[in-house]
Amino acid sequence: MTVSRRDLLKGSLPFMVGAALGGISGVAPRLVSGAEADKQMAVPQPPWPYKKLDSIAVAESAYDGYYTGACNYGVFESIIGALRKEVGFPYTAFPSAMMVVGEGGVAQVASLCGSLNGAAHAIFLITGGLDKKQREVPFALIQDLYNWYEQAPLPDYKPKNAKYQIVTSVSKSNLCHVSVSKWCKVAKVKSFSKERSERCAWLTAAVAKQTVDLLNKQADGAFKPTYAMSADVKACRSCHDQKGTIENTRAMMDCGGCHFTGKAPKHPKI
Amino acid sequence: MTVSRRDLLKGSLPFMVGAALGGISGVAPRLVSGAEADKQMAVPQPPWPYKKLDSIAVAESAYDGYYTGACNYGVFESIIGALRKEVGFPYTAFPSAMMVVGEGGVAQVASLCGSLNGAAHAIFLITGGLDKKQREVPFALIQDLYNWYEQAPLPDYKPKNAKYQIVTSVSKSNLCHVSVSKWCKVAKVKSFSKERSERCAWLTAAVAKQTVDLLNKQADGAFKPTYAMSADVKACRSCHDQKGTIENTRAMMDCGGCHFTGKAPKHPKI
Repeated sequence: MTVSRRDLLKGSLPFMVGAALGGISGVAPRLVSGAEADKQMAVPQPPWPYKKLDSIAVAESAYDGYYTGACNYGVFESIIGALRKEVGFPYTAFPSAMMVVGEGGVAQVASLCGSLNGAAHAIFLITGGLDKKQREVPFALIQDLYNWYEQAPLPDYKPKNAKYQIVTSVSKSNLCHVSVSKWCKVAKVKSFSKERSERCAWLTAAVAKQTVDLLNKQADGAFKPTYAMSADVKACRSCHDQKGTIENTRAMMDCGGCHFTGKAPKHPKI
Repeated sequence: MTVSRRDLLKGSLPFMVGAALGGISGVAPRLVSGAEADKQMAVPQPPWPYKKLDSIAVAESAYDGYYTGACNYGVFESIIGALRKEVGFPYTAFPSAMMVVGEGGVAQVASLCGSLNGAAHAIFLITGGLDKKQREVPFALIQDLYNWYEQAPLPDYKPKNAKYQIVTSVSKSNLCHVSVSKWCKVAKVKSFSKERSERCAWLTAAVAKQTVDLLNKQADGAFKPTYAMSADVKACRSCHDQKGTIENTRAMMDCGGCHFTGKAPKHPKI
């Protein structure tokens, strides 16, 4: 089989690449044949093939990745980069630099923690799909990861080349600015200090490690959710979430991270 | 130039594809030559070439996309899908179904609004890059989009095939559950109703339209930030953000969406 430059130019290459390389990596590309090929993607849709990874090696890579492309990129590229080496195509065909976008809770806005955003995208690329049924596994993995992030004292992994010693804190939120503030309070360190940046590098490593541990369990068919929503959150949701008497919101976040719950003397105003 | 099946198999194809197709799309692929080629990506890193789009057509596509793959996918695929048709490669090489991940504020967790997450990823893929200098334009576009989302009465676009009439609300937050709750309060509708889902479909269309309008302005060299942070937010940040006397957090979100500000009788506790 040969591919001429004319073939490349007229756009039939994506189909041929998919067909030729699909067999190597065990991927069955979902591509149409013929004239429609150039309108379709040259790479298969998720789920992409997974090979169990060394979560410590990935964590170390994520720590380095933080200082190259920040939190979101650090987690995503540490996992996808490892799979690029271990699996090859289609991971060779992903423009990982786009994942820099999640830096500092997306473009420095400090909304969703970038390490969690990157982890979610990696998990979905590896285990998800467009069909509703295909969303169940990645969503369960992501929800468990997010609950862990809210509940565990983090960062819980010390990189080999750590620059400073970093204390742990419990975020009670998946948001960048809340997570940062909670840590700054415990560490007694300013939010734009080098120590806070190093803390986020450790956190990037910790999230990458936890994500790989989850993906490895899923690959073994051994994944079970470990971090459940708290009783407080369930109490909030019993009124405010689906089928509750009020049903005026939706969330699987820790309500208490922003709204006073549990020990609060009265029902929170927000 | 011909490419044999052996070439495909030994992995030198990515470099050749990049080199051959780079000239068509105006992309200068950042790929190494020789033996390293198969370790690199088959597609160029961002920024990817942009051709100005019809924001109304994209909005309509986003509305439909919401009902296929939810909010994040709806925005992302409406833009990237349009560019797949208009530009071709490298957009043909992106597995858009991975963007389903942001559904309901990431995997139903109700954190960052999925339409905003999808928009950010599309903006960065088109205008961003790994180098710090390359992050400035996409981050400015994203920050303006996020401020618009927090401040404007939304949804501000009615799709042609709308199922219901939808009222507008002001979210004062980029978070899924906050945005949903604010709308439910105004609309007097439950959060898991068909009407709320339709509202999020409209919102997906509105965010896609606004994103394309921003990308078109940037393509014309005419982008200027329109939605600034409020005086209240600036007041919070003057103490709590970088170089403030307390410097214990970081955020460009509307503080007042969760923390009481402005008219509050006393400083918020959280």
